[in-house]
Amino acid sequence: MKKHNFSAGPSILDESVIKDAASAVLNYAGTGLSLLEVSHRGKEFTATIEEARNLMKELLDVPEGYEVIFLGGGASLQFYQAPLNLLKTKAAYVDSGTWASKAAKEAKLVGEVVTFSSKADNYVWYPKPWEKNEVPDDVDYLHITTNNTVYGTELRYDPDVKTRLVGDMSSDIFTREVDVAKYDLIYGGAQKNIAPAGVTFVIVRRDALGHVDRPLPTMLDYRTHIEKDSMFNTPPVFPIYVALQTMKWYKELGGVKALEKMNLEKARILYDAIDSSRLFRGTVNPEDRSIMNVCFVMKDEYKELEKDFFDLATSRGISSIKGHRSVGGFRASLYNALPKTSVEVLIEAMKDFERKH
Amino acid sequence: MKKHNFSAGPSILDESVIKDAASAVLNYAGTGLSLLEVSHRGKEFTATIEEARNLMKELLDVPEGYEVIFLGGGASLQFYQAPLNLLKTKAAYVDSGTWASKAAKEAKLVGEVVTFSSKADNYVWYPKPWEKNEVPDDVDYLHITTNNTVYGTELRYDPDVKTRLVGDMSSDIFTREVDVAKYDLIYGGAQKNIAPAGVTFVIVRRDALGHVDRPLPTMLDYRTHIEKDSMFNTPPVFPIYVALQTMKWYKELGGVKALEKMNLEKARILYDAIDSSRLFRGTVNPEDRSIMNVCFVMKDEYKELEKDFFDLATSRGISSIKGHRSVGGFRASLYNALPKTSVEVLIEAMKDFERKH
Repeated sequence: MKKHNFSAGPSILDESVIKDAASAVLNYAGTGLSLLEVSHRGKEFTATIEEARNLMKELLDVPEGYEVIFLGGGASLQFYQAPLNLLKTKAAYVDSGTWASKAAKEAKLVGEVVTFSSKADNYVWYPKPWEKNEVPDDVDYLHITTNNTVYGTELRYDPDVKTRLVGDMSSDIFTREVDVAKYDLIYGGAQKNIAPAGVTFVIVRRDALGHVDRPLPTMLDYRTHIEKDSMFNTPPVFPIYVALQTMKWYKELGGVKALEKMNLEKARILYDAIDSSRLFRGTVNPEDRSIMNVCFVMKDEYKELEKDFFDLATSRGISSIKGHRSVGGFRASLYNALPKTSVEVLIEAMKDFERKH
Repeated sequence: MKKHNFSAGPSILDESVIKDAASAVLNYAGTGLSLLEVSHRGKEFTATIEEARNLMKELLDVPEGYEVIFLGGGASLQFYQAPLNLLKTKAAYVDSGTWASKAAKEAKLVGEVVTFSSKADNYVWYPKPWEKNEVPDDVDYLHITTNNTVYGTELRYDPDVKTRLVGDMSSDIFTREVDVAKYDLIYGGAQKNIAPAGVTFVIVRRDALGHVDRPLPTMLDYRTHIEKDSMFNTPPVFPIYVALQTMKWYKELGGVKALEKMNLEKARILYDAIDSSRLFRGTVNPEDRSIMNVCFVMKDEYKELEKDFFDLATSRGISSIKGHRSVGGFRASLYNALPKTSVEVLIEAMKDFERKH
């Protein structure tokens, strides 16, 4: 049975990318060796990582003066690394959910932190302090988590702020056109829209670095990795290779503009189905809805039907739609590689279920 | 043509492991999904990581009171993380080569560091300060890099010291029997004898932790990952899966004792060939020779023949025997998965070359 993978992450990759990855595990770039056992300093992998870096710049339209690096350790390590490199005395954090809150926590080890939070409302809306001019003038940067996988909210534009802007785009990079020039730092784990778990991308404005006085651990200093083209130590070879294959596929599809259009359409049909349903309802404020992670629950009077719907979904090959425990109900993650047909299968299951109950 | 992969790392993995990895990329544990796109919290991967942890404990005979965790970021990140967790005021470092020296450098950001170095002799011997009772009594730990990939020296026993012992075993874990109880912390990148690049293993004595006063960043606190069974954030799923396959293969072969025997034999025949050669000579003191990374050069009077030997080797499928630029000449890395037949092919090439010149 065909599987429809709505996993929140690590998440679906395109079939062509997966097949290519399996093939490179057996024989990489005609070397007769596995991608898993070649030196990262060999000419084949040096070409792979350079191509990945350049293609990321091309697809995201990264301006001059910015560097793209690939690291290990996950976005969670960036929660500490970003302030270590950028925070002199004080930073502002938008606390829009679980991951944003974790990011702010690590920054507090480095300096003073002001937060703008929707936690009291269980994060059903996205705080936008720039709209009321509330971001203090004296902060070194404002940190935003552009998409919140757990609660299903998303900031779908790049705000204008008077300070440096730092964005954790782990779960929505490559899903909409981003004005990179508005940011000094964008980072993210790659395991949603790019690659399997194990690689973190960082896009950083070169002249944003070097302004803090503290001595930086070598591995946590972005300049280390910029100077060595992400080869200071052994990089996560396999996920970087897969990231390149995904980005090549994106280019074939027409780039980020085309992906955004597809994503809007997938999200629209699913939210429409939820909004017109007798049994289901969305959990977040409509204006802040994520087009990546669609969170919904059974209406209170039908709560006891939840398990039955999981069973029906499973019987149709629908995988990983259980909501995060902080929200409950369902979460359908619609990352780039999820085909619209999978969303249609889910909608059909919802409609059939509603007809039955 | 069959390839003989002598890469210093990322390095050769067994063919059965590579085939299994390629198959899991296409369909993981009968899920109908790729290993690259499943949730790390699903029951299949939860079982994989638990099995990997347990098998590592079993194969290395890890005593009670120790924890095994899997992290991202590479051993280079451990150079900073280890002192952050263990260094109160002062630590001793054996500076036995490139990586050891980098480890000591990061520790200096955290506290006072005393080093015992063979750098003045281009690291051709392994400093053993415990033999002359030179390790100060008041250090928090002694750090050793048990095998030096660049210079080809190795400490092939576990020293008795009066302080905590920390070992970077990136390039010789699973190659000889280790008395884990002598160490408070053992760590290493997995890309030599375990898995592809992207996962770092840490074996730590639980009661060695919690003695420093500094606030620890969440991701750099070993206790975070112990408490969450290496699932605090998304772990590097794919390399952990491959590590498990490698360890299963080790178990089938008879465990570490059997691997050690095979490694000693491979190293013996190659060093014998070097020592009895008219053209080649080893670069390090015989008593400190690594059984993993065999470094040798052309004798001075034959230096101009180096390129010819590379060409002959390449023509026989011998891959990655170029020495590190700090040493020059040749380096044959004999990691666990390299079959003895590959060493024999290299020796045959050396003999044929010698007959010709």
